[in-house]
Amino acid sequence: MDDQVFNSRLLTIQSDRSSGAAELARRCLEIVAESSLQDNSDSTSVLLHKLNIRADLLARSRSSMAPIANLLHLFQKDIEKFRDLPPEEAREKCGDSAGHIIMASIKATEKTAENAAKLIGKDKTVFTHSYSSTIMQIFSLLAGKDLRVIVSESRPLYEGYRAAEKLSDLKIPTTLITDAQSGLFIKKADFVLVGADTLLQDYSVLNKVGTYPAALVAYDNNIPFYVCSEKYKQIHSSSKTPELEAMSGAELNAPDLPFVSIENIYFDITPVKLITGWINEDGVVPVGRD
Amino acid sequence: MDDQVFNSRLLTIQSDRSSGAAELARRCLEIVAESSLQDNSDSTSVLLHKLNIRADLLARSRSSMAPIANLLHLFQKDIEKFRDLPPEEAREKCGDSAGHIIMASIKATEKTAENAAKLIGKDKTVFTHSYSSTIMQIFSLLAGKDLRVIVSESRPLYEGYRAAEKLSDLKIPTTLITDAQSGLFIKKADFVLVGADTLLQDYSVLNKVGTYPAALVAYDNNIPFYVCSEKYKQIHSSSKTPELEAMSGAELNAPDLPFVSIENIYFDITPVKLITGWINEDGVVPVGRD
Repeated sequence: MDDQVFNSRLLTIQSDRSSGAAELARRCLEIVAESSLQDNSDSTSVLLHKLNIRADLLARSRSSMAPIANLLHLFQKDIEKFRDLPPEEAREKCGDSAGHIIMASIKATEKTAENAAKLIGKDKTVFTHSYSSTIMQIFSLLAGKDLRVIVSESRPLYEGYRAAEKLSDLKIPTTLITDAQSGLFIKKADFVLVGADTLLQDYSVLNKVGTYPAALVAYDNNIPFYVCSEKYKQIHSSSKTPELEAMSGAELNAPDLPFVSIENIYFDITPVKLITGWINEDGVVPVGRD
Repeated sequence: MDDQVFNSRLLTIQSDRSSGAAELARRCLEIVAESSLQDNSDSTSVLLHKLNIRADLLARSRSSMAPIANLLHLFQKDIEKFRDLPPEEAREKCGDSAGHIIMASIKATEKTAENAAKLIGKDKTVFTHSYSSTIMQIFSLLAGKDLRVIVSESRPLYEGYRAAEKLSDLKIPTTLITDAQSGLFIKKADFVLVGADTLLQDYSVLNKVGTYPAALVAYDNNIPFYVCSEKYKQIHSSSKTPELEAMSGAELNAPDLPFVSIENIYFDITPVKLITGWINEDGVVPVGRD
C-alpha cells in the first residue's frame, strides 16, 4: 500500500460520520495489516518504522474515539516482538497481529452483547439513542424475546433511522422519536442502553451528542442507565480528556443568516454519577448511580 | 360570521403548528369579537347563546394551551353583564369586551418582557428552546445591550430557525444548535429563558417538547432557569392536567417501516423543582429551585 492509497484510506476514516468507534478501530487495524502484507522494505526495522508511523497517524485520526488509539497502540506494542525476524516473516506476523486484535475485539463485543441481553431478559422495553453496533447486537439477541425498543432519531444525520431500519428487519416493535421527546419516552422504558465512543478513566462516557440529556432524564425518572462497551474503549490516563469532535454546521441544513453561527458537535460526556452500570465482556460493573 | 366561516377559522386554530398559546388565544378572541359584531340575532339571549357556544368550541380547540380557555372564559363571564341590553348594543359591547381582553393580554406580555429584560441586564448569554413570542420580545428589548443568544432548532418543524431569523434581523449574535446539543451549550449561558403554553397550578410548565431535558441540563449545571409568561397562562385547578397534544408522525419525514411507529408529541411538562422563577407582569416569582 503506497502512501497515496494510505492517505486516502486515512481520509475515509476521518470523514466517516456513520460508523461507531469499534467499527472504525477495526478498520484501522485492517489498514495496518494490509500495509504490512503489501510492504516491500528490505529490512524489518524499516517495515516496523513504517507501520508505527501509519499506526500513529490512524491513532490520532479521531480525537473523540479512544478505542482507535487503544487498539493501534496494542498493535504497536505487539509487533516489537518481531524486530529480529527476517522481513518476509515479520510482514506475515504483523498482519496476523492485527488480525488477532480484530478478532479479540469482535469477541469482546459479542460477549458484551450476551451479558447485556442476559441482564435485560424477556418482555422488556429498552430506550436507546442514535446507532451503536454493540446495542444492535444486543437487540438481535433479544429479537425473539418480546423486546420493544424506543429510539431517538439523532440529529443532524439521523443515525436513529438506521437503527429503526435494522429493528424493523428484526421484527422488533419500535417507536421512533425526535431527540427532544426523550423527556416523554424514557419513562416508558425499563432500561436505557447506550454504546460508547470512549470511556473515561472514571467511567464517565463520551458518546453521541444527546446521550447526556437522556441520562439526566433517566436519572430523574429512576430508569436504569447502562453503558455497553468492550473494555478496550476505556482510556487509562486522567490527563488526556478526549476532544469532542465538531463537524460542519452545514450538516444541519439550517438557513444561512448573517448573525447566526451553527454549531455541530458530535459528542457529549455523560458523568459517571448518571450511569447505573458498565456492561462489558466480563459482566456488569456497577458504577456511579445506585 | 356564519357557521361555515366560523368552522373554517376554528380549524385554522386547531391546525396551527407555529403560533404560541398567547398568539392563538388572541386570535380566538378576535373570532368571537367578529362573531358578535357581525351577528344578526333579534334577541340578546340568542346572541349570547351563540357566542357562548363558539367560545366553548374555541376553548376546547387546543388541549395543551390553557390561556385559550382562560381568556375565552373571561370573555364568557364578562358578556353576562350585557344580557339585559338590546341586541344592537350588546353586540357592540361584546366586541369591546373581547378587544379589552386582547389589549390586557398584550400589555401583560409587554410588562413580562420588561421584567425579564431587567432581570437579565447587560452583556449576557441567554439559552432558549424553540420559538416563543414573549421570549422574542425580551430579546428585542436587550438588542442594544450586548446580548448573545443560543437557540435549539426544535424538531420536527424547526421553530428555532424562526427565532434565529428574527435574532439575526435584530443583529444579535446567535448560536443555533440541534436539540441534542443542549447538554453542551446550556452551560455556556448565564440564563435559560423559556415561554409557556400553560402553567400548572403548582407552577410546573407545559411548553414545547425538549423544555424538560433542557431544564434538567440547566439544573445539573447550576444555570438559572426562568419561565416567562403572563399570569393568565396558569390554570387554577389541580384536577385537569392538560393533554399533551400529539401531531402526525409524518412531520418527522422519517422512513416508513413495517415495525416502526413514529411519535410526535409537541409538549412536555417541566416540574417546578427545576424552575428557578416565574417572570410575569407583576415581577419575578421564585418558585421551585434555589
